[in-house]
Amino acid sequence: MIGKSWAISFLSAGFEVSLFDPVEGVTVQSKEKIVTKLRDLQSYGILKNKNISDFLDKIHLAQDIQQAIEGSIYVQESGPEDLGIKKALTKEIDAATPDNIPIASSTSGIPASLYAFDLKGKYRCLVAHPINPPHLIPAVELVPAPFTSEGITQTVKDIMISIDKEPLELKKEIPGFVVNRLQGALLCEAFNLVKEGIASAEDIDKAISEGLGLRWSFMGPFQTIHLNAPEGIAGYVKRYEKMYKEMFNKPDIEWASVLKLGLEEELLNLYKLREREKHEKERDNKLTELILHKIKA
Amino acid sequence: MIGKSWAISFLSAGFEVSLFDPVEGVTVQSKEKIVTKLRDLQSYGILKNKNISDFLDKIHLAQDIQQAIEGSIYVQESGPEDLGIKKALTKEIDAATPDNIPIASSTSGIPASLYAFDLKGKYRCLVAHPINPPHLIPAVELVPAPFTSEGITQTVKDIMISIDKEPLELKKEIPGFVVNRLQGALLCEAFNLVKEGIASAEDIDKAISEGLGLRWSFMGPFQTIHLNAPEGIAGYVKRYEKMYKEMFNKPDIEWASVLKLGLEEELLNLYKLREREKHEKERDNKLTELILHKIKA
Repeated sequence: MIGKSWAISFLSAGFEVSLFDPVEGVTVQSKEKIVTKLRDLQSYGILKNKNISDFLDKIHLAQDIQQAIEGSIYVQESGPEDLGIKKALTKEIDAATPDNIPIASSTSGIPASLYAFDLKGKYRCLVAHPINPPHLIPAVELVPAPFTSEGITQTVKDIMISIDKEPLELKKEIPGFVVNRLQGALLCEAFNLVKEGIASAEDIDKAISEGLGLRWSFMGPFQTIHLNAPEGIAGYVKRYEKMYKEMFNKPDIEWASVLKLGLEEELLNLYKLREREKHEKERDNKLTELILHKIKA
Repeated sequence: MIGKSWAISFLSAGFEVSLFDPVEGVTVQSKEKIVTKLRDLQSYGILKNKNISDFLDKIHLAQDIQQAIEGSIYVQESGPEDLGIKKALTKEIDAATPDNIPIASSTSGIPASLYAFDLKGKYRCLVAHPINPPHLIPAVELVPAPFTSEGITQTVKDIMISIDKEPLELKKEIPGFVVNRLQGALLCEAFNLVKEGIASAEDIDKAISEGLGLRWSFMGPFQTIHLNAPEGIAGYVKRYEKMYKEMFNKPDIEWASVLKLGLEEELLNLYKLREREKHEKERDNKLTELILHKIKA
């Protein structure tokens, strides 16, 4: 499923794709499924002036890994979430892939350090983790291992940008990477609220889908709180850190000290306080447009 | 600021509003600010066929609390986040407000149990907490105290629906209510990621604004994971609970046991497995439309 979604993203941007799945018949079936989704996108006008027939010649069905990789400039492995399988698969891909061609994995949880550490070509292995459904969600997290070359990471970043993805780069590996850690933290609390009998699942969902999720669809959590106090994030932290700490019965990190690690500086650079009113107006305009969009949809 | 936003929501829905702020000059200034925001909304076509002049007669500027409440069917207190002030203010409002008229507070953190417990009219006191900016975000969390009458909570819910808000009702008070607990959990992890040097604030923001936040702008976290496994939420929990637990170094709740508390049943009722394909298609269509909307915006 993830592999097919990647194929759609590459095809939409004008690339050719070679597909291979070891399970009998899956490679052939995948073409049909890709074309169906491409038609959906076309009906929305997302593929601009391209015809479906233009894509058909660009989908190559390979008989094996070797053939799939031949002539490729980039490999996106999307195998099962199993360390043993991923190790064996990446080894095979590495042996078949010419030097300096990136080998990225779609894994949502297994860092390259664990599956590629003993490969000759480990320097071009890294994680490029998309979000479901990958042909629609722009964010892709790039997670290089300590042994991944910077040049390879940069190449993958450039490739992602060229297919209209929004790469976000991790400086270090961490279990769950960034996306699932953020989602996991929110989910843990959502489960906790149900366990404590605070609200129904439907109402908890509403807190996001009719609440926090609206801003978050165009503005991340840091930018959001930076805009929620006249003094920016430092003012927000000063005002609310204690409230947030008191909510949770766990030894919490000191937000105020994290600010000093460059967080405040970065946010003040990205969104200057003297432009606060403009940013607030932009947020409100985007929210208004989103609400109108939701009403129409 | 919050009070003015509420006024806009009530005016947009056809209600008259009476405003009062004890600080010299603020009540008078507020009218001008409200009219400016109404003009913004009008320029987006959100106010339908209404003229700004229609609203002018419906904004009443009161000289004191007494006058503001006279003839009102609902009171929305939006004073400072200070328990002492809120207690005194609510007492004064309670004394001035006829029986059975709800007195709701915009507080984001102080439950009615703490500020209204000794009032004669405590039965009609509760929290109605909006999300910034309240005139644009639909979700409002209603937090009744144990002494709030069910009838009053229902009345406030009906009033919220009549002004196009999406009320979500808490069954119990809890510090931070639902919205700020969900936001707080995500923020704690975002701060942790910065502290651990995992990614820049800009890239962490992107994980939400170009990633998780897209689905969350129309679908809550429970519905999202329910759709992310063929067996619904139970399948998702079975597959990923261990991964999420391993991410965080804290004694975690058992998601699988929370499912048995009615969570799975509720989700299966809301989104039936036999309609999974339809829901998946709907999600993808909404995502596609949202992406097109973002490109245009």
